Amino acid sequence: MPDTAEPKNEFRKDFLLNRWVIIAANRGRRPEDYVHSQRSEKKEGICFFCPGNEHLTPPEISRREVNGKWAIRNFPNKFYAVSLDFPNAYGTHEVIVESSDHTNHLSDIPEAQMKMLLEVYAERIEASRKNPNLKYALIFKNQGHTAGASLGHTHTQMITMAHVPNIVRLERDANKEYTQNSGKCGYCEMMNVERERVIWEDDKVFCFAPYASRFSFEHWIMPKRHVGCISKMDSGELGSLAKCMKTVLGKLDKMLDYPPYNFALHIDPFNATTQFYHFHIEVMPRLNITAGFELGAEIYINPMPPEKAAKALRD
Amino acid sequence: MPDTAEPKNEFRKDFLLNRWVIIAANRGRRPEDYVHSQRSEKKEGICFFCPGNEHLTPPEISRREVNGKWAIRNFPNKFYAVSLDFPNAYGTHEVIVESSDHTNHLSDIPEAQMKMLLEVYAERIEASRKNPNLKYALIFKNQGHTAGASLGHTHTQMITMAHVPNIVRLERDANKEYTQNSGKCGYCEMMNVERERVIWEDDKVFCFAPYASRFSFEHWIMPKRHVGCISKMDSGELGSLAKCMKTVLGKLDKMLDYPPYNFALHIDPFNATTQFYHFHIEVMPRLNITAGFELGAEIYINPMPPEKAAKALRD
Repeated sequence: MPDTAEPKNEFRKDFLLNRWVIIAANRGRRPEDYVHSQRSEKKEGICFFCPGNEHLTPPEISRREVNGKWAIRNFPNKFYAVSLDFPNAYGTHEVIVESSDHTNHLSDIPEAQMKMLLEVYAERIEASRKNPNLKYALIFKNQGHTAGASLGHTHTQMITMAHVPNIVRLERDANKEYTQNSGKCGYCEMMNVERERVIWEDDKVFCFAPYASRFSFEHWIMPKRHVGCISKMDSGELGSLAKCMKTVLGKLDKMLDYPPYNFALHIDPFNATTQFYHFHIEVMPRLNITAGFELGAEIYINPMPPEKAAKALRD
Repeated sequence: MPDTAEPKNEFRKDFLLNRWVIIAANRGRRPEDYVHSQRSEKKEGICFFCPGNEHLTPPEISRREVNGKWAIRNFPNKFYAVSLDFPNAYGTHEVIVESSDHTNHLSDIPEAQMKMLLEVYAERIEASRKNPNLKYALIFKNQGHTAGASLGHTHTQMITMAHVPNIVRLERDANKEYTQNSGKCGYCEMMNVERERVIWEDDKVFCFAPYASRFSFEHWIMPKRHVGCISKMDSGELGSLAKCMKTVLGKLDKMLDYPPYNFALHIDPFNATTQFYHFHIEVMPRLNITAGFELGAEIYINPMPPEKAAKALRD
């Protein structure tokens, strides 16, 4: 009876949010079917992010040097979505170039430089927090053109705003309710309930494919200690986080040949006075097309069961 | 002072939902900059949806004929996301082929056939409603490969499920609250507040670019009469809806050379006993990439102000 052996699809709900997905196990594709090469294009013409072209970017905000040359550079985004001059879209928009080498992807930079990059993230968040009109900083990365990268040279962006995004409020409210009901943080609890889908961990950092993954090979990374922001992690924790990102993004890049992906840092709102938030990074490979069903129902169809995704990224 | 003349971006909130967008007017692109040709590819090999290949699809559910030949055909989707055999992803998944002609786009079919198609939508919803285990039917279209169409031959899909999508509940709850506070349906009220962004209207149907459009050239179409579902529209209203869709999709296709888009019908839940919902169709052209900011903040950046989009689709 071959029919009964067919994997059955299932609706799954996020551990905290009222957010649903369909895990379409019946599509039965193997991890290697998802190879989706989007290596950074070879440089054509002038790259604004390359050494020698520093004068072509807006004035530098900060840099990190290695052996007397910059390794990481941070400046305002020339093509800003928000601005301190926009009364109704108030905020700042920055770029953080992750490497001076145009051909590097993020997973190619040394672990020590990955840690330096995470320190820059923390520093830029803390600098933004000093402006009392700003309520949030979103740090995100677009890797590959189908994930929205308009320049091939590897970089992260930060957009700050006078507004806490709904999704962050929803996460915080759901976790507050979970904590008040159970006495435990919901994200801390995921480190117990998600054991079947662990990808990487040490004593400080945990990485897993969430039970209700929206994207094929989606994974979340979080500190084991209950902290609301990357800027509250200590040096040892940032070292573990750097090691985790280098390892897991490296595995993703190797397995799928540098696929398109986005990631976003979920930090607590600037004005949060009590701590019902747990910092985490959501890494979202862009291997499936978000189509009419996803936009109409706001339910993602994910053909790659996270159990299989975790195994592939772990082994 | 050229700086003060620069268009200023702004955050905008949806009329009913707590959903925000950034209208990035500073990008200053003209409608013709959005041309994004994704005409149906010429047929290569066998098209399962073409006349002569009816035996290659699952058994037909219904058809509409014109001059003794089928013009519209409806059958189960061979690549189903849900099934009556999946206990945890219970539902049905159907295809509605909109034309027998492989080279037609939806806007190319005659107005009378468009009306026939809308009647098929209504009929399939009503048939689904008879199964007491089903709670919702989502009718949606993927046009163009970047909008998720895997086959070029123009078609619509329907997915029914034992579950009301969150977004529909959120819309209904928000409209219930609006109605209880103001004595008026929020969607009926949009027909007054959105006058600046009208695209098409007659005495029965209204089409506009919403104030907080997430997508460039996004537009919503709704009956002027307060009804919760397409199946409650009468023949004259369906005629107006067909005329509106033929006109506005035709304008979109002509202006942007058959761009990728999705649409979704927002109907009331099957089990709704009181009427706090207003049927509408959301048409979402896929001209911008949803990137890390959109996924991380759930705030869309839309570079095409809906006032400009409405003017371009209207004139």
